[in-house]
Amino acid sequence: MLDNFYINDIIRNALKEDIPFGDITTDSLIAADSVSRARLIAKENGIIAGLEVCEAVFKFLDSGVEFEKNVAEGVPVKNGDVIAHIRGNTRALLKAERTALNFLQRLSGIATATNQLCARVAGLPVKIADTRKTTPGLRFLEKYAVRTGGGSNHRFCLSDGVLIKDNHIKAAGGIKKAVELCREKIPHTVKIEVETESLEQVKEALEARADIIMLDNMSLDRMKEAVKFIGKRALVEASGNVSLENVHDVACTGVDIISAGWITHSARALDISLRIL
Amino acid sequence: MLDNFYINDIIRNALKEDIPFGDITTDSLIAADSVSRARLIAKENGIIAGLEVCEAVFKFLDSGVEFEKNVAEGVPVKNGDVIAHIRGNTRALLKAERTALNFLQRLSGIATATNQLCARVAGLPVKIADTRKTTPGLRFLEKYAVRTGGGSNHRFCLSDGVLIKDNHIKAAGGIKKAVELCREKIPHTVKIEVETESLEQVKEALEARADIIMLDNMSLDRMKEAVKFIGKRALVEASGNVSLENVHDVACTGVDIISAGWITHSARALDISLRIL
Amino acid sequence: MLDNFYINDIIRNALKEDIPFGDITTDSLIAADSVSRARLIAKENGIIAGLEVCEAVFKFLDSGVEFEKNVAEGVPVKNGDVIAHIRGNTRALLKAERTALNFLQRLSGIATATNQLCARVAGLPVKIADTRKTTPGLRFLEKYAVRTGGGSNHRFCLSDGVLIKDNHIKAAGGIKKAVELCREKIPHTVKIEVETESLEQVKEALEARADIIMLDNMSLDRMKEAVKFIGKRALVEASGNVSLENVHDVACTGVDIISAGWITHSARALDISLRIL
Amino acid sequence: MLDNFYINDIIRNALKEDIPFGDITTDSLIAADSVSRARLIAKENGIIAGLEVCEAVFKFLDSGVEFEKNVAEGVPVKNGDVIAHIRGNTRALLKAERTALNFLQRLSGIATATNQLCARVAGLPVKIADTRKTTPGLRFLEKYAVRTGGGSNHRFCLSDGVLIKDNHIKAAGGIKKAVELCREKIPHTVKIEVETESLEQVKEALEARADIIMLDNMSLDRMKEAVKFIGKRALVEASGNVSLENVHDVACTGVDIISAGWITHSARALDISLRIL
Amino acid sequence: MLDNFYINDIIRNALKEDIPFGDITTDSLIAADSVSRARLIAKENGIIAGLEVCEAVFKFLDSGVEFEKNVAEGVPVKNGDVIAHIRGNTRALLKAERTALNFLQRLSGIATATNQLCARVAGLPVKIADTRKTTPGLRFLEKYAVRTGGGSNHRFCLSDGVLIKDNHIKAAGGIKKAVELCREKIPHTVKIEVETESLEQVKEALEARADIIMLDNMSLDRMKEAVKFIGKRALVEASGNVSLENVHDVACTGVDIISAGWITHSARALDISLRIL
Amino acid sequence: MLDNFYINDIIRNALKEDIPFGDITTDSLIAADSVSRARLIAKENGIIAGLEVCEAVFKFLDSGVEFEKNVAEGVPVKNGDVIAHIRGNTRALLKAERTALNFLQRLSGIATATNQLCARVAGLPVKIADTRKTTPGLRFLEKYAVRTGGGSNHRFCLSDGVLIKDNHIKAAGGIKKAVELCREKIPHTVKIEVETESLEQVKEALEARADIIMLDNMSLDRMKEAVKFIGKRALVEASGNVSLENVHDVACTGVDIISAGWITHSARALDISLRIL
Repeated sequence: MLDNFYINDIIRNALKEDIPFGDITTDSLIAADSVSRARLIAKENGIIAGLEVCEAVFKFLDSGVEFEKNVAEGVPVKNGDVIAHIRGNTRALLKAERTALNFLQRLSGIATATNQLCARVAGLPVKIADTRKTTPGLRFLEKYAVRTGGGSNHRFCLSDGVLIKDNHIKAAGGIKKAVELCREKIPHTVKIEVETESLEQVKEALEARADIIMLDNMSLDRMKEAVKFIGKRALVEASGNVSLENVHDVACTGVDIISAGWITHSARALDISLRIL
Repeated sequence: MLDNFYINDIIRNALKEDIPFGDITTDSLIAADSVSRARLIAKENGIIAGLEVCEAVFKFLDSGVEFEKNVAEGVPVKNGDVIAHIRGNTRALLKAERTALNFLQRLSGIATATNQLCARVAGLPVKIADTRKTTPGLRFLEKYAVRTGGGSNHRFCLSDGVLIKDNHIKAAGGIKKAVELCREKIPHTVKIEVETESLEQVKEALEARADIIMLDNMSLDRMKEAVKFIGKRALVEASGNVSLENVHDVACTGVDIISAGWITHSARALDISLRIL
Repeated sequence: MLDNFYINDIIRNALKEDIPFGDITTDSLIAADSVSRARLIAKENGIIAGLEVCEAVFKFLDSGVEFEKNVAEGVPVKNGDVIAHIRGNTRALLKAERTALNFLQRLSGIATATNQLCARVAGLPVKIADTRKTTPGLRFLEKYAVRTGGGSNHRFCLSDGVLIKDNHIKAAGGIKKAVELCREKIPHTVKIEVETESLEQVKEALEARADIIMLDNMSLDRMKEAVKFIGKRALVEASGNVSLENVHDVACTGVDIISAGWITHSARALDISLRIL
Repeated sequence: MLDNFYINDIIRNALKEDIPFGDITTDSLIAADSVSRARLIAKENGIIAGLEVCEAVFKFLDSGVEFEKNVAEGVPVKNGDVIAHIRGNTRALLKAERTALNFLQRLSGIATATNQLCARVAGLPVKIADTRKTTPGLRFLEKYAVRTGGGSNHRFCLSDGVLIKDNHIKAAGGIKKAVELCREKIPHTVKIEVETESLEQVKEALEARADIIMLDNMSLDRMKEAVKFIGKRALVEASGNVSLENVHDVACTGVDIISAGWITHSARALDISLRIL
Repeated sequence: MLDNFYINDIIRNALKEDIPFGDITTDSLIAADSVSRARLIAKENGIIAGLEVCEAVFKFLDSGVEFEKNVAEGVPVKNGDVIAHIRGNTRALLKAERTALNFLQRLSGIATATNQLCARVAGLPVKIADTRKTTPGLRFLEKYAVRTGGGSNHRFCLSDGVLIKDNHIKAAGGIKKAVELCREKIPHTVKIEVETESLEQVKEALEARADIIMLDNMSLDRMKEAVKFIGKRALVEASGNVSLENVHDVACTGVDIISAGWITHSARALDISLRIL
Repeated sequence: MLDNFYINDIIRNALKEDIPFGDITTDSLIAADSVSRARLIAKENGIIAGLEVCEAVFKFLDSGVEFEKNVAEGVPVKNGDVIAHIRGNTRALLKAERTALNFLQRLSGIATATNQLCARVAGLPVKIADTRKTTPGLRFLEKYAVRTGGGSNHRFCLSDGVLIKDNHIKAAGGIKKAVELCREKIPHTVKIEVETESLEQVKEALEARADIIMLDNMSLDRMKEAVKFIGKRALVEASGNVSLENVHDVACTGVDIISAGWITHSARALDISLRIL
């Protein structure tokens, strides 16, 4: 799923950060030709995401490392489960350990958080989507983790999707003009989304033939009203303060997409450890 | 505190990730010469860290932006407080907003988490330290946030500190040999830390004249015993499952340093928003 | 329109290619503090695009250079017109000249070619769009030149638009399944386009609720038939062997977008010269 | 001919431009382990150049791809000829296709244009040379394509050749002083070329013992006169508005080299397609 | 000892510097598939360091090159000794030759200089250490060469060691305050070194519990006095104008470490040649 | 003389190497807004080269630093001379000091060595030239230092000059064929040099019309004979074991150029210090 040329730069950067001028402990104590076996083990329940990156970190330091996945990405693991068996140069294993885990734990944490949110709306015709509130430098990986956890991606960046907000509307002189101006200028392959804060704005957006209408921080009742008014003439996205507690209620309003920033910016890392045998 | 040549590469990378080929909304709707005022506002209580990076993001897109800090780094803010006043090219403000906030919210989240931990041990002769469990690519910034929150830094990477773990000990043939080998090979400017899991190992490390002894996942009683045995002949660091709940008890064992991974890998982002006026 | 952080890397790269170890002629002959005036002059009729990049090249070598545009981007110039007045360090002018012109001539060539195509369909409700057949490394600039010439952009890359082709259809087991699978997996902000080669496929694409239907290399009659059948239920794009000669006829079939690869991959450079006074 | 370390950076850059965050169509529809065969096919007559780069693009995404060249670089192909047989991961083939073709078509277009110019002067003792009017970032590849098409390279950049132009002459105070100053300062391994616009200047350049004399935009008669006057005491290069129509006449003046900018800046891309079987 | 991801960037950079646009001699004269054998031969006595880098340079241009080391790093060689046997693509050997030798000769020169210094103090309980006076861009390699020659490393950079100098002392308001401030702020894993110029300062540093005391440019007598006074309560480092002539005398003062800048900044390259058979 | 875009990358790289994660001493002890004055002082006699780079290092850390040169590049300084006056942020001065000096001392060392060689042949019609035996990553700067010291540059790299050596001759089947093949393939702007080891080879090279003939490791008598035989029909370069002792004798043989590797690979750094006032 992840193209190597993309991963490699991020990994090189991470390893240079952690090993700018050698691992002075390992280089002093471990023989250069020592070979070891190791296991990645889950220390709590969750969803694994990022094994490809994790494997690639080890391969960066020992291209001959054997990395045998014991679980598939996106599948739940339990505390104590063996995630992967690894065999390779001992120095490489010890040097790569922390960086590999830093990737794997963060991505698995995001997948797990996403999955928890998805589980609350299981069976309902709604998608859980991410936002652009991701870690600088890791967006592609974090959005991959969201998909792995069962979520859906919102636009990747400012270049591949239109989201017309308050300031854009003011500058353009109204929702209708803003939508028209965008449609004139952007690639015809991209949908136009308008952020709305009132039913009045929802109506304007609909009249402007917006493809997606975001209901920003609305009450459940207002969301229901908006969904009803829109009547499938546009996709409807709910946004703002979505939590594990309220996501089911939000989904029941009939919106098509629920986006949540915290699954990327505030997910706890999943506890995973490397045990060298 | 942060050298520009360091920050710039990270910011350029983050902006390229978010704006690989233009902001198709803003470039379509906002006049190129439009100028706006904006405010950074705290949406919850916490400690601010990262304003320099935040400012630099805006300056990357409009070198003439005015960024007036209203609060100092490391000082508590309350929900609703204005953190900074900004004035600059409207397009630049809108394009930089998300990236600037992604940095500021994460770093402030780390500073806030660190500060909470520090508050629990206020007055006790102990330091709260971070680990290498940081976000790939952001270690320097995250360790800066830890300091800003009142914490202390552990080694930055594998190159600037020795931490002799289980596998190193086995490979070297005992703690004593491991310490001696390291002392022989590493720069004389670096201390040697040994990770111990039993009092037996603590004694060996002390005999080997380790500079720092890490008590890894020990019970409170065993930690007390170890601290007493060591008797100031080495620095003592407690590590493993340190939480807001138990940190005070751990500090009371008399250890010199308490390190915690979660303040970097699992801190919640602090809620901060940009309001364009 | 062009963010500096984007342009700068491309320019640095281009200058390093042209001046890897100094300009041995200029450094030998021109005094370091010599200052000159120069003019950019059109040597044939056309549309200018890329003055910002051109200016940035000179600024790279002399940050104090004065660059006064005499014409606006996208506006026609005639043979002999002065495009810009420049004043700065003579060495910088001489070193930057070729690189600056290489950018400006290519981008102006693309804008001019696009404009010629647009002129042929003036007044008709159709957009002239580009493709991904751009110069490796210069896509953003070349797509900017297309817009400057009056054209419209197709998707920028493989990441921001879906185009389901023959092989994708086969692999998915039919157009309907392909569209459904994509809709399930991609961001909800992106439209789905299907490439069709027959009316049969057009019908399938419409039934699958494709957002855009590409008519690939169809005859004029078949295009008309397809447009009629689709009846505004999807955007219709004509593609394949579009030339200055046939573009008006294609537009008259009623398609919404006409895409042409040659405006980027085979446009002649516009003849422009720098005259140092 | 092309060192990998050179090609790789350009290819990585081009792929990142086309696939910044995944191929959302192919990743959604094609199985990760699917394998396909494909053929590169010429859609018009011409000279192929750049198969190494083309192959390297595919290898970047699937290191195990099989790429069997069916024609040699620099040899004419006809419309319909199979250029290469390819076999590899289907996703990799689909993702690499456009980038690989963008390189191959441009380079083959340049080789074809160069070859047409060379064909017009076949048998005459003259070389067809390129200029520095190349695409920013692709100079090395484009100059390789010129050689592949039968042409010769002029200097690569401002660092490896001296070309004394009008402004240099003025600044130095005459051709003689300019040549002497350069000879004093440049590496002794580099020849000195002087651009001349009159017979008077030709004489001065000859007296200054210039190694190469460029006749810039001179009439055929004047060129003949200049060649006669120079009498093999320096290499003679004709430059300015050389076309397929007039190149033979220019060659007949007796010049040693004819340089033409359009073979790189305005060559049409050669039509080549990838057919996945 | 040297992680590939570190070496590779330096080598790529060096090769791009030496072969920015092809080896015009070798590409013109040597067949692309020619294979040759070669030998690295010492042309004077010394210590070899850097064979891994040397080998990696050749592998960069021909990944299949065979490189068989005939001597181990750090072991003395004599004029005429064969250092390595190489077999690979002839073009690759010729292109890599100079860059590979530039690395190997410099690093071996540093190892040899270091070794000469070490030899003068053989048997004495003292370490010969390097400084930060290294070649910009090559510090890690040069410090590796120092270790290979039998020396020891001082801090790698400004980030991994504290060295409190005159200006720091003044700014802090005395040695004691400076040491305390540092201890408060730096990672607990790093030692604190104080540069002293008098016995008075030595005493202050000792009272401040500095871990290392540098005796900067002191006379032999004063050094003896300082060593005696310190009495093993801190490590003692002698610095300043250490030469082959005086190093034994300095060592006899009882200091623990002697640092010398010239072993990196002024070591002569070791004469080594590549002979292609 | 040195284009900023070139210097900047080298400086950024050097600073990242020396300050990968802060200057833990200076950041702990010096106030962020402290300002100091400093002087660069020569500690021995020599020729200064590299002040521009030196200044640029300081500017990298404090763009407002004042750097007033007290001596010109290439002019002799004496022990104790003030080279430059500096004023700027104290932290920036302390952080930049070592890196700035590492550049300045090395480049001045090379200029001084070159100058010593030049002084021995003052008045004789011969140039002292460098080689490609430079520090990886610093070739451009080091060749600049050679020019500053009064020397001349040989080719910069494998791309801008032809040097036909033994293996090339063998592969081509003789000197004549080698020269012809090269002349056919290389840019017409580049001269062809042939390395010769006997008078026989000198004759062959002359017959092949080589532009430059290198006399490699020949005795003085043989060199005289070769120079006489060549009789100004080609430039003559002496190479091999040129020292301060024998350079005058070599020059007296009548050769045009004498090249010496040691002025770049084995020059001692010039002793220069920064004194903060």
